[in-house]
This record gives sequence, C-alpha cells and structure tokens, in this order.
Amino acid sequence: MTEIYFDNSATTKLDSQVLKSMLTTMETYYGNPSSLHDLGNQANKLLQSARQQIADLFACQAKEIIFTSGGTESNNFALKGTAMEKGNFGRHIISSQVEHPSVRRSLEHLQRQGFDVTYLPVNKQGLVSADDLRAALRDDTILVSIMAVNNEVGAIQPIAEIGEVLNDYPSIHYHVDGVQSLGKFTDILIHPRVDLFSLSAHKFNGPRGVGILYKQANRKLSPLLDGGGQEGQLRSSTENLAGIVAMAKAMRLTMENASQENANHKQFQEKIRAYMSKNSDFKIFSAPNQAPHVFCFALRGVRGEVMVHALENEGIYASTTSACSSRATDQASSTLKAMGVAGDWASYACRLSFGSDNTMEEIDYFLQVMDKLVAKFAKIQ
Amino acid sequence: MTEIYFDNSATTKLDSQVLKSMLTTMETYYGNPSSLHDLGNQANKLLQSARQQIADLFACQAKEIIFTSGGTESNNFALKGTAMEKGNFGRHIISSQVEHPSVRRSLEHLQRQGFDVTYLPVNKQGLVSADDLRAALRDDTILVSIMAVNNEVGAIQPIAEIGEVLNDYPSIHYHVDGVQSLGKFTDILIHPRVDLFSLSAHKFNGPRGVGILYKQANRKLSPLLDGGGQEGQLRSSTENLAGIVAMAKAMRLTMENASQENANHKQFQEKIRAYMSKNSDFKIFSAPNQAPHVFCFALRGVRGEVMVHALENEGIYASTTSACSSRATDQASSTLKAMGVAGDWASYACRLSFGSDNTMEEIDYFLQVMDKLVAKFAKIQ
Repeated sequence: MTEIYFDNSATTKLDSQVLKSMLTTMETYYGNPSSLHDLGNQANKLLQSARQQIADLFACQAKEIIFTSGGTESNNFALKGTAMEKGNFGRHIISSQVEHPSVRRSLEHLQRQGFDVTYLPVNKQGLVSADDLRAALRDDTILVSIMAVNNEVGAIQPIAEIGEVLNDYPSIHYHVDGVQSLGKFTDILIHPRVDLFSLSAHKFNGPRGVGILYKQANRKLSPLLDGGGQEGQLRSSTENLAGIVAMAKAMRLTMENASQENANHKQFQEKIRAYMSKNSDFKIFSAPNQAPHVFCFALRGVRGEVMVHALENEGIYASTTSACSSRATDQASSTLKAMGVAGDWASYACRLSFGSDNTMEEIDYFLQVMDKLVAKFAKIQ
Repeated sequence: MTEIYFDNSATTKLDSQVLKSMLTTMETYYGNPSSLHDLGNQANKLLQSARQQIADLFACQAKEIIFTSGGTESNNFALKGTAMEKGNFGRHIISSQVEHPSVRRSLEHLQRQGFDVTYLPVNKQGLVSADDLRAALRDDTILVSIMAVNNEVGAIQPIAEIGEVLNDYPSIHYHVDGVQSLGKFTDILIHPRVDLFSLSAHKFNGPRGVGILYKQANRKLSPLLDGGGQEGQLRSSTENLAGIVAMAKAMRLTMENASQENANHKQFQEKIRAYMSKNSDFKIFSAPNQAPHVFCFALRGVRGEVMVHALENEGIYASTTSACSSRATDQASSTLKAMGVAGDWASYACRLSFGSDNTMEEIDYFLQVMDKLVAKFAKIQ
C-alpha cells in the first residue's frame, strides 16, 4: 500500500545511519558521563566529542551548545531562563503573532508573572518587519524572540535584519526558534547577533527527546532544571548520550544534504503551485521564495481535517496546520489568522511538509489524487 | 578483561529486550502522536497503551502518569510546579538534609524566590523521623518532599509513616523522589497518601532521557514546559515514544524480577559485611535492613577517588558517593555529613551499587581484590 509521508514538520523518520549510531552508543557506552571511572570517562569523552561536532556546525564554541530534551524545552529555557535572569533589569519582551505554542505559551506564562509582551504583527506572507521591531523596542526590553521558519506556512523571518537592528541594543537577549530551519540556510545562526537558538533532533531525522539550545558564551540564563550541575550547571540531568550522539550525526547528514534537498523541495512546490494556480478553488498560503519544505494550501469548502483524512485514504500523510495544535480544542491556525486569512479559508488549510526521502514521483501521485478529490468534493457540495 | 559494574545507582545497562522494544518502536511508529492521520493515531495508541501498562504497575489511573525527560525533570516539576501552583496559599516546604541534588537545588532555587524550606535532619542511619516531620508542619506548609531510598547509602525513608502524619493535613502536596526505589517495594507508591512520585528509566535498565512523574489526579501542578499541550497540558513536547515504550517494558521486567534480585543483593551485602566486620579499618555507612542494592563503605586513610581508581584497575567500577556530584567542585557527601560522619571518614567513602546482572562470583572477586588493596594501602601508609 502507498505510504507517502508529507508531515515532516510534525516529525521525521529516523535516519537508518543515525539509528545505527544510537544503537552502538547504547550498547557500548553505558557509563554515566559523571562517573569518575573509565566507563564514565569514555562516555564523557563521547559526549564532549558530539558537542564539538555540533559546535563546528554552528561555528561556535563547544561550551555554547547546551543539550536539552527537545525544541519545547529549548524554547522554554531560552525565554523563562532569560526572564528569571534579567527580570530585575526590565520586564518587556518582544515576539511575534506567529510563534510556535512552546514560545507563545511560555510568553503567556511570563505575562502572568508580570512581564509585558509585544507580539509583532505579520504581513500577508506571514513576515514580521524589522521596522516594527525597532519601533517596539523600549528601555526595559530584555528579550526578543522570533522564529526562523514558521511551522505552518514556511515564512522565513528577517532574522539577519533584526540582528542588525539589535546590534544597537547590545544588552537585549536575541532568541531564535530554529526548530523548522535546520538545513535551510548555510549558516545555522543566520546572523552573528543571535544569542540563543533552539533546535529539536526529531525534526531533522534524529531521535525524539533530544534537542539543543545554543547560548552565546557571554549571555546569562537561569536554569530551568536544577540538580547535578550537568551542561555547565545550566541543565541538570544525566545526559541522554545515545540521543545526543545520534543527533550530532543527524545534524551533519542534514547539513551535507541540504542544498540538494532544498532544490528538490523547491521543485515539488513549483509543480504543485503550477497545478493549483489553474483552479481558482485553491488558495496557497505559503509565499513563493519562503521555506522550500513547507507548503500550506486550501481547497474551497473542504475543511482541513476532511482533506487530511481524504489524503490519508489514498496513502498520503499530511496535516492541518500544525501537529502541536491539531488535537487541541482551539483548532484555528494562529499564523493564518495573523496573516489576515478569513476564518472559513483558514479552516480549509492543509499543510504538506517535505522530508529527505520524498520524491517527485510522490508529488505526481499527490496531484493525481488531487484531481480525484477535486472532482469528488465538487460533487458533494 | 574483567568488567564488573557496581555503579548501578549512577546508571544501569540497557536491558537487551528493552532495547529491542525501543528499536521496533523507532522503526515502525514514526508518526507524531499529535498528528491527526493514521500514523499519528497508531503512535498515540501505543503511547496510551504504554501509559496504561505503567498505571497498572502503579495501581493508578492512566491520566496520573506524566512522562518527562528523567528524574531531574520529574523532581524539578514536582517541586517548582507545586510552588508555582500553591505559592499564594503558603510559602513553607519541608524536605530533608539528604535529598538528591535535583531536589536540593530546586529547593534552593525556591528559597531564592522567597519560599521557606525546613530541611529535616537524619539519624546515624540516614533516616528522617516522622515525629520531626510532624513538629515541622506549619499552617503555611504547602509541600513535603522526601526521597524513598537515599542514593548514597541506601537509607529507606519512612514514607508510609510520613503518609500517616500527612493524612491529617490533606491540603499539603506529598512528593516522593523514588528514583532509587523501583523494585525495592511491592507497591511502587509505598503509601496511598503520596501525591507525586518521581522515577527515571535509566536507573532500572531503561533508556536515558525519559522518566515519570506520577501525579494524584486531584492535585494541581503548574507546568514547567509550556507548549503544544501534551501530557494533559502538563508537560508539552513531542512525546519520546520509543523511550516511553522501552521504559514501560523495563519497568515491568524490573518489577517481575524484583524479589529475586533483592534477595541476591541482600546476600551480596551480607557477604561483604561479614568480610569487612573482621577488619576495624573498614567502616560501613549503609545500615543493615536498608536498600539491598546500595552499599557505602570506607577504608581508613584511603580517599574515595583513590579507592574508585584502585578498584577500576582491577576491572571493578564503583563510585564515590554519587555520580551526580562526583565531578562537581563540592566533593563532600551531603548525606554522610548529615549522618554525622566525620569529615575524614566521609572523604574515604566508596559506594557499590548492584544491578540486575551482578553475581556472587563478582562479589567473591571484589573481596579478593579488597584483600589485595588492604595490603597495598597498608604498605603505603
């Protein structure tokens, strides 16, 4: 039976080489990196070598890489850790209306603690403006948090431009949620002004339950998890060594394959765009020249869930706008709403997100299925 | 070469059947449990079935099991989550002087936020007293946090007795750090009054990076990790499905083998005690009739690190008192100090911690090595 996985922004398949690394680590290096004996030392050495490999990809120092349990923890840590550390210097934070729930709800938590958050609007393409950001800055602003690539429509935010603005405000922490961005840019950090950057391994063919927070060496952050003092006293917990080693490998593979993969995804999008532009019942929410792996569209009158299930019946796995909110009671996409998409059209939204092993043949099959579904839904309505 | 692993309180080897479950899950169930399509549903079903299996072992409801990234997160979540939730009703917390760093440092964090913490003393066996606990209770006490089994000397705290005391104070959250206790008791929770209970998979032959916080259904806790709303809105993050499934299996195996394993460990201890009691240069810090898997001792004049390295040269992997603090600058064992052990004797402490595959032959070998080391160190001194 056909199984075409177009839900890579929700989670990706584990790469077989990555799985092998993980297995070998679990079987061979069972010592606790904190133990003083040789089994501990071996584990600790492997941990530090994975850290160095990742630091090399970031072009940063090894001590700037903090291992976490995933993107949600990295985002919570960056935001709440900054707020705890710098709350006495100021209580104003700037973010956007289109952030992932792990950022948005962390900010709502901080608002309940008395912090003041400005949520920058986005234009019809889902982009914030560096000018709006500049206008929102205040004397008491301690943190700016903007995602690199939007998970629902693929909008690439002006991280570098904002970095330029923030060069004039050196005391503000600049956090970038990069969870959807790995492999989309040559430089992971995109701009040297970025202080904090979140990644999640399972979004790039690595395992679940492990992520990264890059923290610029001179920036201070209060820990979320207190304890044994691992990760330079910043993130206590026995290190998930196998997960970390696997993540380092997944990251290297992703970066190596990125330019070819991006080119493929771009071709996928172009083909689907050409197809959908011929039928005025389709609306495309992902602007061209944004992230190649995320494509959000709608077919008039067909609710997102209905489309997802209709595609599934043909062996194609897609999603409404975001996995993280798809089981939640609040179904409306916050990104589309912020982009000014009307409520009924937003409810028709369906997201395809491409991964490393999708092919043009799968796109062709998807378009054949679309032909069928368009005809089917036209009859029903 | 000999490789005898007596550092199971630091971390355990992954069980081969558990590893197999983990592998199968990673290869077969790659959907995100939050995705609406069938791959997501399959993953979600497997997640809920693992939760039910664990709930059955706890004899509790499935919704009372919250998956976390490990013992440190579970402890931080229980303590800080209670403090955030109930801080307006009271600011007093009771704990002990012998808790794991993930509890102790979380409490220190809360003290910096204005909470008042009473640290109960322990007797020479490392035990807190339920009477001391009762005397420490105040009108504004919101939380009692006591570990089940001490990680440094194996003292089994009077969890049930404290539960009886707390039956008279129904509004107080009762948290038990059970990280070292799984399989040591027939009933995981030990006493029905326990509201919150922490476990870590890698302490019972499961994988790193995954743990549990049991939370009694009617108790309220503020989340540490905000986001997509997983784990009943209490712990956001894409679920580490393979880790969770593997943990459920490891937990079942541990409980099944517990009585045989405890009997073995008890015999190990008895043999070592008999050996050491003949030489007044040995001191044993672990009281008899405490946890069978932890044995803490000292040889006069030989520092813990020196003993660990001498044992290592003979292929035996032990530890000073706790892996989590062994690389830290503050080397002194807080448990031994609280037990009133003099500073020099505390610095000689060495911990053996037994696991599921240790044998009596290994104990015999250890005692032969001890003969050798006693002679060797006697010459040096």
